[in-house]
Amino acid sequence: MRIAVTDGIDKNAKLDLEEMGHQVEERHYSKEELLGGCISDFDIIIIRSATKITSDIIKANRGEDSSLSMIIRAGVGIDNIDLTGATENSVLVCNTPGSSTNAVVEMTIGHLISSNRLLIKSDRMMREGLWAKKELRGSELRGKNLGLLGYGRIARGVAEIAKCMGMNIHVFDPYLSDYDDGCVYHDKVEDLFSSCTHISLHCYLSEETHHLVNSELIKLMPKVGVDGIHCGNHIINCARGGIIDEADLHECLVSGHLSTASLDVFEVEPAIGNELLTLENFQATPHIGASTYEAQSRIGKEIVSIVTEFSNGDSPKTRLN
Amino acid sequence: MRIAVTDGIDKNAKLDLEEMGHQVEERHYSKEELLGGCISDFDIIIIRSATKITSDIIKANRGEDSSLSMIIRAGVGIDNIDLTGATENSVLVCNTPGSSTNAVVEMTIGHLISSNRLLIKSDRMMREGLWAKKELRGSELRGKNLGLLGYGRIARGVAEIAKCMGMNIHVFDPYLSDYDDGCVYHDKVEDLFSSCTHISLHCYLSEETHHLVNSELIKLMPKVGVDGIHCGNHIINCARGGIIDEADLHECLVSGHLSTASLDVFEVEPAIGNELLTLENFQATPHIGASTYEAQSRIGKEIVSIVTEFSNGDSPKTRLN
Repeated sequence: MRIAVTDGIDKNAKLDLEEMGHQVEERHYSKEELLGGCISDFDIIIIRSATKITSDIIKANRGEDSSLSMIIRAGVGIDNIDLTGATENSVLVCNTPGSSTNAVVEMTIGHLISSNRLLIKSDRMMREGLWAKKELRGSELRGKNLGLLGYGRIARGVAEIAKCMGMNIHVFDPYLSDYDDGCVYHDKVEDLFSSCTHISLHCYLSEETHHLVNSELIKLMPKVGVDGIHCGNHIINCARGGIIDEADLHECLVSGHLSTASLDVFEVEPAIGNELLTLENFQATPHIGASTYEAQSRIGKEIVSIVTEFSNGDSPKTRLN
Repeated sequence: MRIAVTDGIDKNAKLDLEEMGHQVEERHYSKEELLGGCISDFDIIIIRSATKITSDIIKANRGEDSSLSMIIRAGVGIDNIDLTGATENSVLVCNTPGSSTNAVVEMTIGHLISSNRLLIKSDRMMREGLWAKKELRGSELRGKNLGLLGYGRIARGVAEIAKCMGMNIHVFDPYLSDYDDGCVYHDKVEDLFSSCTHISLHCYLSEETHHLVNSELIKLMPKVGVDGIHCGNHIINCARGGIIDEADLHECLVSGHLSTASLDVFEVEPAIGNELLTLENFQATPHIGASTYEAQSRIGKEIVSIVTEFSNGDSPKTRLN
């Protein structure tokens, strides 16, 4: 099969596909090129998050002679693919849902500890020649309530480690019933926020979740841990930009309703010149939650298996339409 | 009793001691003042790490009219107290060994994740206006070997969380026999280093451990994880400065034998102007491993209990001589 790879692929996966006789072409296309039908000759297009596949792009590449019949999203989130448009044009969409889980889980725990213990601010101050121990006193996670907004694969991985660290796990996920796993389940998102000094986001971006986290919700957070320690409020987002209203986040970081905020994802990416980056109590990573050598290797293996299933005429296990 | 507090104390602990009828005086003394006998009128001196109590200082405060009979170290490490000198002059020394454990455990895990996922470098680059996703690909901890040099309270806490994160725990501690806890125990420190891509230090500073970690040991580290991923080598020290030879550390960070190093402690503190701080793959915190609101509260409670035992004529449980 002819495969277009627009946002990169693990080297070993490319080699494996080529050894299996597939023709793999790695190249990034502009929106204009895609709208011009540049991928209609390929059977499969493999994208990450940088390529947006709109309904118009799908139509433009599904003419009479077109062979395009599958889009593979190397990763999880498919908000950059018009799934309805793909279905209407008989293009199959698959993703690699399990491959990035552990990478994002570890990233979330990393942001959680480093924000609460001021690791990034510490390093910054030391590089500026300051040894400011008193200013850098932090708070521990053990004994605190961690609220998870959304309780899919990643959130459950975070919960497992956080429990092991002695945190109490609270959950809000309207699409799930209660599990019997020792977490506290809330029916209202307001109850999650008023119960937790620490909140981590793990939901999809949708109309329902767009700007769901605003200053009204943040101001419900208790600032004082259930252990009686005044630890302040902390928010982590390693899910999708746009779930948090960034103007509200800025306001709450300045007013002190939030002690820290940690974002791996932003409403507008690349997030260069974002005003949050001027704040001392804010910390950022450039959407690298899934960006590990291990995840790339797992994603590569999963892509090879999807292409194999598809070229054998089977229905890939991770198909979304 | 008259109590001198030289490096600060938790507010509630001070109030509790005063309510019990003790006289608490908070003030930092210079070395000269201490050598001049300025604390001979106190029954108890409470210090953290900033006050050094040498044998000469103890002698200078143990004249005929002296009442000084106990030194309490608010924290764990007693390398700033001459224990032999204290014993020879009949001064009791106590510390608060359990109070800081969890704070340092969480700090260690925080350094471990943030170095492997380049959190600090990411934030620094973003503040400089760079969105460098490719340069910031990191590696996961799951499936990697974590070597613990020293296996006391803190190391065991780190092991518990790291195991939960899917790491394999290796241990070198010549003062302990093997436990049956799923760790791999090594008889030689060289074997620990040659087995592990990730090393965290949890031993005391002594003649035996001074500059124990040098380039010879670091160069034994395998760079490739047992999962086959080329993750590089990573070292964390939240124990005591001086265990690592910092010149060797610098050399290994530049040569690539180490991918990252994370220090909370330094041979010379405050570590201002330390050359390591100019390196991109180095990260630092200013000896704040135990510096949490929770630990300060626990240390305060332990101090109140030591003073109570002592003033009742009982032998404090955490006495060291």
